[in-house]
Amino acid sequence: MSEHEQKDRDPVPTGGALVGDWSPHEAELLIEAGVFTLRKIRATSPSDSGKVGEFVYIDAPDWVNVIALTDEDQVVLIEQYRHGIGAVTLEIPGGTVDAGEDGVNAGLRELAEETGYTGDDVEVIGTVTPNPAILNNICTTLLVRNAKCTRATELDAMEEIAVRLEPLERIPALIREGKINHSLVLAAFHFFDLLEG
Amino acid sequence: MSEHEQKDRDPVPTGGALVGDWSPHEAELLIEAGVFTLRKIRATSPSDSGKVGEFVYIDAPDWVNVIALTDEDQVVLIEQYRHGIGAVTLEIPGGTVDAGEDGVNAGLRELAEETGYTGDDVEVIGTVTPNPAILNNICTTLLVRNAKCTRATELDAMEEIAVRLEPLERIPALIREGKINHSLVLAAFHFFDLLEG
Repeated sequence: MSEHEQKDRDPVPTGGALVGDWSPHEAELLIEAGVFTLRKIRATSPSDSGKVGEFVYIDAPDWVNVIALTDEDQVVLIEQYRHGIGAVTLEIPGGTVDAGEDGVNAGLRELAEETGYTGDDVEVIGTVTPNPAILNNICTTLLVRNAKCTRATELDAMEEIAVRLEPLERIPALIREGKINHSLVLAAFHFFDLLEG
Repeated sequence: MSEHEQKDRDPVPTGGALVGDWSPHEAELLIEAGVFTLRKIRATSPSDSGKVGEFVYIDAPDWVNVIALTDEDQVVLIEQYRHGIGAVTLEIPGGTVDAGEDGVNAGLRELAEETGYTGDDVEVIGTVTPNPAILNNICTTLLVRNAKCTRATELDAMEEIAVRLEPLERIPALIREGKINHSLVLAAFHFFDLLEG
C-alpha cells in the first residue's frame, strides 16, 4: 500500500461514478520543508487509455477551524500576518489536528490558545477538502456557542495574533468587502448559513 | 525587493491594523516540482520582539473558478479524480490563470475547455485567498449565465473529466451531504448566495 492510502479516516464522500478512480503507485518523498511534506505519486488511469501520470501533492495533517459565538452573537475573529499572501488577514481561529488528536479537541485547543475563549456547546457543522488536487487532508468546521474569554492565550513562538470581536450580522459585509477572504473561513460561514437557513 | 512582493495586482484587502506587517527578506527557491514552486522566506516581526522567522510558502499562479448556469438554472459541474485527496470530486470548472491572461478570460477558457459550455453574461462575484498562510495567490469566482454547450471539450493530457448538470436548488443538499466538499467551490457558492440574498 502506498503512503497515499494510509490516512486514518473514512473516505471523503464523492459525487458519483461518471469517472473512475486512478490506481496510485508508491509515493516518493520530494522534500520536507517548514509545514510542507511534498510527495510525488505515479498513478494509472482507469480509462481505456491506461495512461500513467506523475502527480505531486502535499501530505498534510488535517485542519480544523472554529466559529465561536458569544452570548451576544459576537464572532471571535483573529488578525494575524500571513506569510503566504504577505498581508494581515481576518480569520476565525483554527489550526492543525495533532497526531492522535480528535478534531473537536483540536478545534477547542486552537480556539483557547489563539484567543483565550472557551465554550460549552460544540458542534461539527461541516468538513471540506481544502484543495483535493494538491492536498490530501480535510478541514473540519466547529461551531462553539456561549464562548467566553476565560484564560490567557498561548501562542506559538512565531504567532502574533490580535483577537477581534465582530457582530455575527456584520460577517456578510466583511466578506463582500473582501476583509474576510480566506477560502476556508468562507466555507465555514457557508456551513453556518446552511445550518441556520 | 524580494520575489515575494512582485505579484502584479492590487493588495488583498485586510481586516484592520491591530497587528502589523512583517518585513520580508529575500525569498529562496526550495524546489520546483509538478505544479509546485516552494520558496522559503525570512521575515522580521513588526512587534517589539523584532523576532525573525523562516516561512515556507507556495509561489502559485492565480486561480479562477466558474459557476455556470443554464437558462433552466442547471449548474454545470464536473467530476474528476483528484490526486491529492485520492478520490473523485464534484466541482465547478476552473483552473489556473495563465501568465499575462485576464482572470475573466481564463475562467471562460477553463469553462469551455473542461465542459464545452460557453455563456454570454459574465460577472466576477468574489475573490478569495485560497490559503493565505501557505499560498501567495488568489482565486476569483465568475458567474456565467445563459450557459450552453456549444463546442467540444479540450482536455489536458492527464485530465479525465465528466460533465454533470445539477439543478441550482440541489446545491445546498449536495454540500450538506458532503458530495460537494472542495473549499473553493463552497466559497464560490457562498459568494453566489450573498449576491442573491
